[in-house]
Amino acid sequence: MINKLVEEIKKKQAPVVVGLDPMLDYIPAHITKKAFEEYGETLAGAAEAVWQFNKGLVDAVYDQVPAVKPQIAMYEQFGVEGLMAFQKTVQYCREKGLIVIGDIKRGDIGSTSKAYAVGHLGKVTVGSKTYAPFDEDFATVNPYLGSDGVKPFMDICKEEKKGIFVLVKTSNPSSGEFQDRLIGQEPLYEIVGKQVDAWGRELMGESYSYVGAVVGATYPEMGKVLRDLMPKAYILVPGYGAQGGKGKDLVHFFDKDGLGAIVNSSRGIIAAWQKDPYKDRFSPENYADAARAAVLDMKEDIANAVL
Amino acid sequence: MINKLVEEIKKKQAPVVVGLDPMLDYIPAHITKKAFEEYGETLAGAAEAVWQFNKGLVDAVYDQVPAVKPQIAMYEQFGVEGLMAFQKTVQYCREKGLIVIGDIKRGDIGSTSKAYAVGHLGKVTVGSKTYAPFDEDFATVNPYLGSDGVKPFMDICKEEKKGIFVLVKTSNPSSGEFQDRLIGQEPLYEIVGKQVDAWGRELMGESYSYVGAVVGATYPEMGKVLRDLMPKAYILVPGYGAQGGKGKDLVHFFDKDGLGAIVNSSRGIIAAWQKDPYKDRFSPENYADAARAAVLDMKEDIANAVL
Repeated sequence: MINKLVEEIKKKQAPVVVGLDPMLDYIPAHITKKAFEEYGETLAGAAEAVWQFNKGLVDAVYDQVPAVKPQIAMYEQFGVEGLMAFQKTVQYCREKGLIVIGDIKRGDIGSTSKAYAVGHLGKVTVGSKTYAPFDEDFATVNPYLGSDGVKPFMDICKEEKKGIFVLVKTSNPSSGEFQDRLIGQEPLYEIVGKQVDAWGRELMGESYSYVGAVVGATYPEMGKVLRDLMPKAYILVPGYGAQGGKGKDLVHFFDKDGLGAIVNSSRGIIAAWQKDPYKDRFSPENYADAARAAVLDMKEDIANAVL
Repeated sequence: MINKLVEEIKKKQAPVVVGLDPMLDYIPAHITKKAFEEYGETLAGAAEAVWQFNKGLVDAVYDQVPAVKPQIAMYEQFGVEGLMAFQKTVQYCREKGLIVIGDIKRGDIGSTSKAYAVGHLGKVTVGSKTYAPFDEDFATVNPYLGSDGVKPFMDICKEEKKGIFVLVKTSNPSSGEFQDRLIGQEPLYEIVGKQVDAWGRELMGESYSYVGAVVGATYPEMGKVLRDLMPKAYILVPGYGAQGGKGKDLVHFFDKDGLGAIVNSSRGIIAAWQKDPYKDRFSPENYADAARAAVLDMKEDIANAVL
């Protein structure tokens, strides 16, 4: 799947992933209205609105980007009904040829991490049958529990030719609270980064590993160091756009050939219709066109900075 | 809710939580057979088997323990259907007067952590209505992203009078890989522990905080240090029983009055019918009685060591 990701990035000339993190506030009124008319102001109504919103977005951008990254929390907040919308979204994106990165940030001890890996990337056995419940292509993984928590994901990745992105240095303001603590001369995120490199070498694709890393666009200097420490890891870069990261901040996350990183934007794309410079050009009904315009602008911003 | 937890621990004389982490292998054949006859060898069939298994366990132990801890991964592996069984289990346990600790180990950046907090502990707004999708009483939280990831849970806990247990030192063999790294003279888990103490002081119940900690029974010496560093934090102690922790290892997790910690056992209780010394005394049909016997033995083991 990492090989396919690289191929699609090249083909679409877009190291860009669209974060499908729908908040009800981002969804134009005509969509929520219709969903609530059909299902009431219920969890099922919210889930329907989320799904219809996503479908419109995906239809508008699928030919321009290699991947999407649904953030499962935004679905889980609506309970089981929300998770049905997550599942439907994953399936629809895959049908459209998009690579799906499940932003699930799971991580637990051995057998429990295995259950997450099976549920999200692999197949679960029920009697004589097997099922792929959520069936994302990649998942994000929290490393705090160490190798026990990550290896079960790697085992499933090996079987299924799928991949993970391990949290190394996250994009949020307080990520340094623990991640930047110095172990001798090295911050914790470098120790984690080295471990990602070691894990990754056990599971190589053609030029990059099935084990990638998450490093926030908001910390470009750290991105530079981590790029060197993890030469085989694809870096998933959140924090572009709404969180403050700019194209020029991204240069050091990439390798010289413009590969090695994929940049996520969520709000900046999916809620573009509510924001400058798009809100004057696009009506709420045309939210998906606004998202497409934001994707094209983001591609250009990154290409100017990186390629 | 932390006050209620303390009260129930006293009333039932049991600092014990039953981990509802059902693997299909733990479920007696008569239950899976019936579920598969009704729903086929499907995800819905697996979920039904899990739910019926849980129901039997809960009915057999609810008068003996204050709390249960369903591990959501074991449900999530069966997709949406599995999560329905999780939801049903949470609801049933609450009806039986049990406190429910959702072992979800979530943790993300700001708005995303808020979505998890809302979905699991709080209420989500849909139009003019609100819903409590999963409605656990406590949730476990991963601290790797720092305060941004934890504070949204604390906000919801304050509103709802619910609580969290933050992962500090986990019970698994490789937990030391990052958690034991020395920052100056202090291991990372102590830094996290001090932060748990600081977070906790912002959200106090009567004698303990709404912010607790997870510290594995498998690391008793570290438990001793952490008990002192976080005097107001209730400690959720996994790793007893099947993972190797014994009653005598637990002494230092508790305060002098026998409060301050609650010990989880999962496999050791819910799969007792498959294990010595219970398997000769209980048939598969009596798996719930075996679980009850294991709970009583665990209570005695802990009481002998601690009280």
